This record gives sequence, structure tokens and C-alpha cells, in this order.
Amino acid sequence: MTIRRPLVLPALDPANVEATQGSNYPAEFKPRVTGRTKRRLGNALGLKNFGVNLTTLAPGSASALRHWHTKQDEFIYVLQGELVLVTDAGEQVLTAGMCAGFQAGKPDGHHLVNRSADDATYLEVGDRTPGDGASYPDDDLVAKAVGNGWEFTRKDGTRY
Amino acid sequence: MTIRRPLVLPALDPANVEATQGSNYPAEFKPRVTGRTKRRLGNALGLKNFGVNLTTLAPGSASALRHWHTKQDEFIYVLQGELVLVTDAGEQVLTAGMCAGFQAGKPDGHHLVNRSADDATYLEVGDRTPGDGASYPDDDLVAKAVGNGWEFTRKDGTRY
Repeated sequence: MTIRRPLVLPALDPANVEATQGSNYPAEFKPRVTGRTKRRLGNALGLKNFGVNLTTLAPGSASALRHWHTKQDEFIYVLQGELVLVTDAGEQVLTAGMCAGFQAGKPDGHHLVNRSADDATYLEVGDRTPGDGASYPDDDLVAKAVGNGWEFTRKDGTRY
Repeated sequence: MTIRRPLVLPALDPANVEATQGSNYPAEFKPRVTGRTKRRLGNALGLKNFGVNLTTLAPGSASALRHWHTKQDEFIYVLQGELVLVTDAGEQVLTAGMCAGFQAGKPDGHHLVNRSADDATYLEVGDRTPGDGASYPDDDLVAKAVGNGWEFTRKDGTRY
């Protein structure tokens, strides 16, 4: 069969999805994810029940501050490069083909850090169960889902 | 950093997840997915809000009968090999790095078929919104979610 390009929906070449940077963290935390680039594949495909991002971390960047969610499950699958997964269990290096999952409500903060010299790319999936919150064991930060975004406060409840 | 193996939860090497075959389709439809092998990564990681499978199709096998879901979104990402995506838009060949998404409630039946000479592997994600149903445009089949499984009938409502 002839391989037809470009693909048409419901198929998609991720290269045709806009790559975005930046975060909605309070200013002092933004530098930690400066090297993070996301392509929101699920949104581009019109999916609503969960999000799927194709995310690349440049050397030195983290996926997020170390955190855990109260209501939403998360899954990651490494496609390329080498990422350090940090959880309460310690640090583990994940290479292409390895995966990890973070159960909603399990108070084990997690994030990925690229400590290698090359870009690393992974798929991340998270559902959209309402009423979610996120806790950050290493930082003075608490997040609460508000509408389609997040409201961030310090642990004493004051705003940034 | 030393790469530690084996990985410990919440990380996982998919090779350590049981590979299962078989389907719960009525007998006459089972041969179409005989060459399908799934590793249920999400379940192995304790995730509940959505499922993630690492699925391999042997030459000649389909991912499923062509179908669409009323309530649950689906996403697939090709990791290896070549798969033909069949939808109302026609046929498209998806190679490694290509993806597709199937919005809940969109009446466009879809499935993947491996028409190549080699195995093909992809990740599939689906949420678990209750009250789901599936329609099969090419076959005399209707599915309704019942508990953790599916109830299949003919289109006239009679049982197989």
C-alpha cells in the first residue's frame, strides 16, 4: 500500500502539532521547566477525557516540580534519551521503552529530570477527573484545579 | 549516574508485564484478533482512571473489529512497524512516531490492521467513563459496558 502523507484526522503526525514552552507556575519556579517543550497531541485530536502530550526535556530541565495528584492518574512512556525519575523510592534512570505510572491519591511526589547531555522525549498521559489538587513535597507550593487551570498558593494558603 | 535494573515501582519495564492474548468477542469474531498481544501497563502500575496497553499485532491481525465508543476517548501511538488505520476517511499507513485519536461519541468506526510482513507495536490509551457502548459498522455486533466487561449482542438485540 502507498504511504499517504500528510496524514488526515483522526491520524496525526506529531511534528505538525505546535510545540509550546512555558508554565503557569509562580515566577520563582518557572526556571526549573524552562527546557520543557510540549506538543498537546490529545487536544489536537479533539480528546477530552484525558490529555496526551509528547514532551521533550532539554538537558537540565525537569518535567515539573516534584508533585502528586489527589484525583488524576498519570502515565509516562520514554521514547528517546535518558530521564531520571525521582520519587520517594529514590532515583531511577529510565531509557527508551521504559514507563512509569502515578496513581491518584498516592502521596509519593514524582518528576522527571534530564541530567544527560542530550534531549529526552516521552509521552505523558493524565486524565481530567474534576476536583483535582497537587501537593509539592520539596517546595512551598500547593495547587488546586480551578476551571481549566490551576490556582497556586503557598502551603500557608497565601498567594504568590 | 548508574542505571539501576530492575526498575522498581512506580517505574516499570514493560518486558516484565504479562503478555496476554485472546478476546471476549463472540466466537465467530475472535479469529480477527488472534495475532494480538497486550501488556496492560496501566493496570500493572495501579492506574484506575484510564488503561494503557502496549499492544503488538502479528501480520494479518487487527487491533479490534472496526468500532467507535459512545463515552470513552481512545488514543494510539505507533512505536514500531507499520499499521493501516481504517476509518470512514479511508485507509492510512501509520509508521513509528505517528498517532491517532478517537473522540467519544464520534460515529466513525476505526481499527488498526497489520498488513505488513512484520510485527507492529503501539501504545493504546482509553479512559473508563462509565455507561460506555460500542458500535460496529461492518459487523452485526453491538457492545454495552457491564461491570468491568462487555455484553455483546446482534444489532437486533439477540444474544450470541
